Amino acid sequence: MSVPPRARPVALADVEAAAGRLAGVALETPLIESLALNARLGARVLIKPETLQRVGAFKFRGAYNRLVQLDASQRKVGVVAFSSGNHAQGVALAAKLLGIPALIVMPSDAPKVKIAATLGYGAQVRRYDRLTESREAIAAAVAAERGAIVVPAFDDPHIIAGQGTVGLELARQAAALGASLDVALAPVSGGGLLAGVSLALKAAWPDVEVWGVEPAGYDDLRQSLAAGRRVTIKPSGRTLCDALESPFPGELTFPILKRNLAGAVAVTDAEVAEAMRYAFSVLKLVVEPGGAAGLAALLAGRVEVGGRTVGLVLSGGNVDPALFARVIGGEL
Amino acid sequence: MSVPPRARPVALADVEAAAGRLAGVALETPLIESLALNARLGARVLIKPETLQRVGAFKFRGAYNRLVQLDASQRKVGVVAFSSGNHAQGVALAAKLLGIPALIVMPSDAPKVKIAATLGYGAQVRRYDRLTESREAIAAAVAAERGAIVVPAFDDPHIIAGQGTVGLELARQAAALGASLDVALAPVSGGGLLAGVSLALKAAWPDVEVWGVEPAGYDDLRQSLAAGRRVTIKPSGRTLCDALESPFPGELTFPILKRNLAGAVAVTDAEVAEAMRYAFSVLKLVVEPGGAAGLAALLAGRVEVGGRTVGLVLSGGNVDPALFARVIGGEL
Repeated sequence: MSVPPRARPVALADVEAAAGRLAGVALETPLIESLALNARLGARVLIKPETLQRVGAFKFRGAYNRLVQLDASQRKVGVVAFSSGNHAQGVALAAKLLGIPALIVMPSDAPKVKIAATLGYGAQVRRYDRLTESREAIAAAVAAERGAIVVPAFDDPHIIAGQGTVGLELARQAAALGASLDVALAPVSGGGLLAGVSLALKAAWPDVEVWGVEPAGYDDLRQSLAAGRRVTIKPSGRTLCDALESPFPGELTFPILKRNLAGAVAVTDAEVAEAMRYAFSVLKLVVEPGGAAGLAALLAGRVEVGGRTVGLVLSGGNVDPALFARVIGGEL
Repeated sequence: MSVPPRARPVALADVEAAAGRLAGVALETPLIESLALNARLGARVLIKPETLQRVGAFKFRGAYNRLVQLDASQRKVGVVAFSSGNHAQGVALAAKLLGIPALIVMPSDAPKVKIAATLGYGAQVRRYDRLTESREAIAAAVAAERGAIVVPAFDDPHIIAGQGTVGLELARQAAALGASLDVALAPVSGGGLLAGVSLALKAAWPDVEVWGVEPAGYDDLRQSLAAGRRVTIKPSGRTLCDALESPFPGELTFPILKRNLAGAVAVTDAEVAEAMRYAFSVLKLVVEPGGAAGLAALLAGRVEVGGRTVGLVLSGGNVDPALFARVIGGEL
């Protein structure tokens, strides 16, 4: 995937500029607190529910920040993206708002709600077989054929800066409560959200421990941090977290993550399902599997938070009703 | 049920005093907005999700405001309440926080999650058969036997004032966004929430249209407003809205409602189920049937909101997973 050359890495100023572009377009999601969760963990957890963001996930922020910076000729040729669903919706809605044609390449086994919503925002969707076809090759072919701009899911400075506005809001909202974060957790796949959020949080609190949470079997970030370089894993199976299946950290995201993270931890499907049930029954929030990874890590005790103030990003809420019913019914 | 004699009706000052007692004890729930809902209705809807309140419903506010004003000897003898579930949990948690013994009389067919949570807060629960026993008689007998204080679900000035803090927050949060409400909707059973909220909203915006939303077949408020006096209905069946089954408006709540309301509208079970599905799939919020009544009225077009700014209270989120699964699966 092509990354525009830049003289400098993504910095706080880019995140702040993104916030300016998103003002009045993305929602400022609230910061919420559950005294029941606090009591269970012996900590104060400030929850940033990006489930409530437009398209039901943080992905709209980065996508809009990327697309709004295209010039008139680029807007005319349109954009192409590949995504299992949330980036797809983010790009589709941003493109619709800006009048840009969009084609999204999605795996045929993506959650039905994600495919339907992407079509609903007016994008074209091309399905592919996750096992036999390469989404990168398809997207590149489409881009070449149409001259369309590829919008990467995470490895792009404007995408990272856009997702970072989640952290900027979190920092400002926590400060407004008189709180300062000791720890923060967010789900991680390619690392766009986590890299952006870490930039904002480290600027607010240099000592905050920022953790990435991955699905078990997809711990490419943990392995990469241990090796000190980007490691590509060979997943041995699927994960419940359809949104977190990237097998490697991004070229642009990894240096930021390496510098800013306390570490990465992994959660099992069972822990993710338990977190979704907890979100349903206690928090009263609909959270998709990948979106619940950070909560799963907290409930499973993967990160030490006793007596501390914790920022928790719930990154998305797009889940098929049939799967959600199975999870809350205890079948998963 | 015994209501303490008072020299004057509940007023805004009582709601403000309740807010002072609840500060740092109840949560200030956020005000959230869905651009998708706005687009569907052609209106701006500011959503107050009391689903996120302690115990998963607004009921904690009134219960705590009532219990915290008991004197030492009253606290020692304890409290008794009857409730299908949310008031039960509110009283149970408030009693626990204040070290007051609590007995809650609940119908044996109340949602399992509501019974379990009430027990979880340390209250005793006495179950009764909704068809063959009178909860008022049981509660009165228990109160007489123990000398315990009965905590009414709605017909009490401190309960009304406590629930009114929902409206106080809504008015302040809307004003902070530069918005003023033209219309507001809340579910109504005995009217504690709606009476309290109407006091706060009418003080902020004298011309705001406040609507109560009832289940079809339980439209005692609509009938009472039409008759100009409290009407008790004979329900011909059950409603999905277990929290909204009061057959009459309160003695204290009705005069406030009569003065402040634009009217009351009714929603069917099918409309409530559709609203729960909408909350799940678009808003990403878990809302119980009764809590979704206001949203159901909006989606069904029961109240004219085009071009207006609307306050919407989602009053509770305590729903059994099995029922929720059936609703999102389209079985109801």
